[in-house]
Amino acid sequence: MGGDHGPGVVLPALARVAQRRGDLRFIIYGREEEVKPVLARHAPLAALSEFVHCEVAVRMDDKPSQALRHGRWKSSMWKAIEAVKAGNADACISAGNTGALMAMSKFCLRTMANIERPAIAALWPTVRGESIVLDVGATIGADSHQLVDFAILGAAMARAVVGAQRPSVGLLNVGVEEIKGQEEVKDAGRMLREANLASMHYHGFVEGNDIGLGTVDVVVTEGFSGNIALKTAEGTARQIGEYLRAAMNRTFMARLGYLLAKGAFDSLREKMDVRKINGGVFLGLNGIVVKSHGGADEEGFAAAVELGYDMVRNGLIDRIEADLDLFHARHPQTAARLAAIGEDEE
Amino acid sequence: MGGDHGPGVVLPALARVAQRRGDLRFIIYGREEEVKPVLARHAPLAALSEFVHCEVAVRMDDKPSQALRHGRWKSSMWKAIEAVKAGNADACISAGNTGALMAMSKFCLRTMANIERPAIAALWPTVRGESIVLDVGATIGADSHQLVDFAILGAAMARAVVGAQRPSVGLLNVGVEEIKGQEEVKDAGRMLREANLASMHYHGFVEGNDIGLGTVDVVVTEGFSGNIALKTAEGTARQIGEYLRAAMNRTFMARLGYLLAKGAFDSLREKMDVRKINGGVFLGLNGIVVKSHGGADEEGFAAAVELGYDMVRNGLIDRIEADLDLFHARHPQTAARLAAIGEDEE
Repeated sequence: MGGDHGPGVVLPALARVAQRRGDLRFIIYGREEEVKPVLARHAPLAALSEFVHCEVAVRMDDKPSQALRHGRWKSSMWKAIEAVKAGNADACISAGNTGALMAMSKFCLRTMANIERPAIAALWPTVRGESIVLDVGATIGADSHQLVDFAILGAAMARAVVGAQRPSVGLLNVGVEEIKGQEEVKDAGRMLREANLASMHYHGFVEGNDIGLGTVDVVVTEGFSGNIALKTAEGTARQIGEYLRAAMNRTFMARLGYLLAKGAFDSLREKMDVRKINGGVFLGLNGIVVKSHGGADEEGFAAAVELGYDMVRNGLIDRIEADLDLFHARHPQTAARLAAIGEDEE
Repeated sequence: MGGDHGPGVVLPALARVAQRRGDLRFIIYGREEEVKPVLARHAPLAALSEFVHCEVAVRMDDKPSQALRHGRWKSSMWKAIEAVKAGNADACISAGNTGALMAMSKFCLRTMANIERPAIAALWPTVRGESIVLDVGATIGADSHQLVDFAILGAAMARAVVGAQRPSVGLLNVGVEEIKGQEEVKDAGRMLREANLASMHYHGFVEGNDIGLGTVDVVVTEGFSGNIALKTAEGTARQIGEYLRAAMNRTFMARLGYLLAKGAFDSLREKMDVRKINGGVFLGLNGIVVKSHGGADEEGFAAAVELGYDMVRNGLIDRIEADLDLFHARHPQTAARLAAIGEDEE
């Protein structure tokens, strides 16, 4: 029900994915009167899907607290997350309200035993392929322990999705000499270097320009700066796209050149196409939840579904749990700290 | 003496600027044996310049504390800043070590009476022209009062450089619903809205993608996220440039198309050229200091000089002082807070 287009985009997207991945099955949650007519036009999809009618749908502009109040237990969003918890689904994909999806996912799936706070991870296209950047907006601020957690989560995702054997991990920092970074970032760097984990190669600090260059497989930062980096990169790509369009329309020769080089421009557009790498992954929860961009089209939503598929196929949750267990077994002080936090909350 | 190329780039750059702005005079600080031979090749420049030999030059990899220790009172960097303080120069331009330049500028020029901490402001090209973004790395973190100060500083610069009569100002924030932003940002937003200053139009929050779109004339944020936004945009522009180059080389038709559209590509390259908008401005000090990119070429360093020129011509420092006086006269609690901080430091 979520996103700018609802079932009109989501269902055709599922139909595409079904053709490409023969072993996928879907459970579709939504309002019958909106979903059924679209599903009727996609018979092959309907044949391998189960549909569950939900009267309530979370609105795109609901605050997380509002969404929890009127959508818990019964909304399509809640039901989809609950299916993961119950083991009826391997992953939940939604184009809906990000804040509500995160709030409900935390409430329903809970964070993993060794994790204080979840993160949203983005796949980021680089000149060398794809990197993972987290947190791009789950929470503001992160202390050094949480940054180390994010590094472990991101490295596990890199192994599951990007295929790196021992992914390189960098902590996002500033390069101006005057200020050598936030204390939390420096502390996290020390901890990662000392831990010398088998699951990752800790590269050190990276700067904003290193993200697009693909200097490391995983870029770790807290949610405020991560969100700003992500949005700034999107804005810059759109800006350059506009410059390019304007430049290619200015003269007859430019338009002719554009026509001759059209194949090249199309491949460039594909490279710059955020749809191809759509999907923010919620990491640190007891289950896989992927947030598709609300404005995603069919191919974009399909990419989010396939991202979830790849993570399930590659046993992301098991990898994360194993890595966390290994780290915390060797760092009992962190486990003790978490236990203390748990007691405080009770 | 600073930057990757030293006098070999700086002096030809000054020669260019001298041709374009007939009323400029230069005082050049540096080591005689390196500067004099280059200056000898630029007779018209030499005629309108004064040269001051300085035995010591701050190194690009000096830490700010090291630079202060061995470069204070006597290095070319210090002398250039001191010329501003003494009123012998209207602005100091350097391609040297950013941290050292900021440390020396603070030590020599001091922050303005109503300002706690200086900021570095960047001119940012947008689809609508140019915007000002600050702080891009002077200090990490900023409380709400400091963010308000940055807004006043940035708005004054926008009037002096971009030519906006009543510039629009936005506070950089994240757009995910779950997290509605740092407390400091929210408080600063409230203060700016209530203050309703004549020197700016407070627009509200903006996100990372708004920077390149030119949604506002001035984007205000603290130094960590500002630096990450700036570097991320640079990295994205380079990344797309590489995609474009690769795409245009792939086939014969693409190469032919490229040749026909070469004029358009050249104008695009010019748009994307960071050299044209080179120069980080130190704001909040009792004098104008412009930091050129260390890797700037002649045209790049010339742009930094012309940026300083424009700010002097348009009375930047007076504008800032008038705006700050007006704001603090109406907000005596802020003045009292500053006085208390001043007493603590003494």
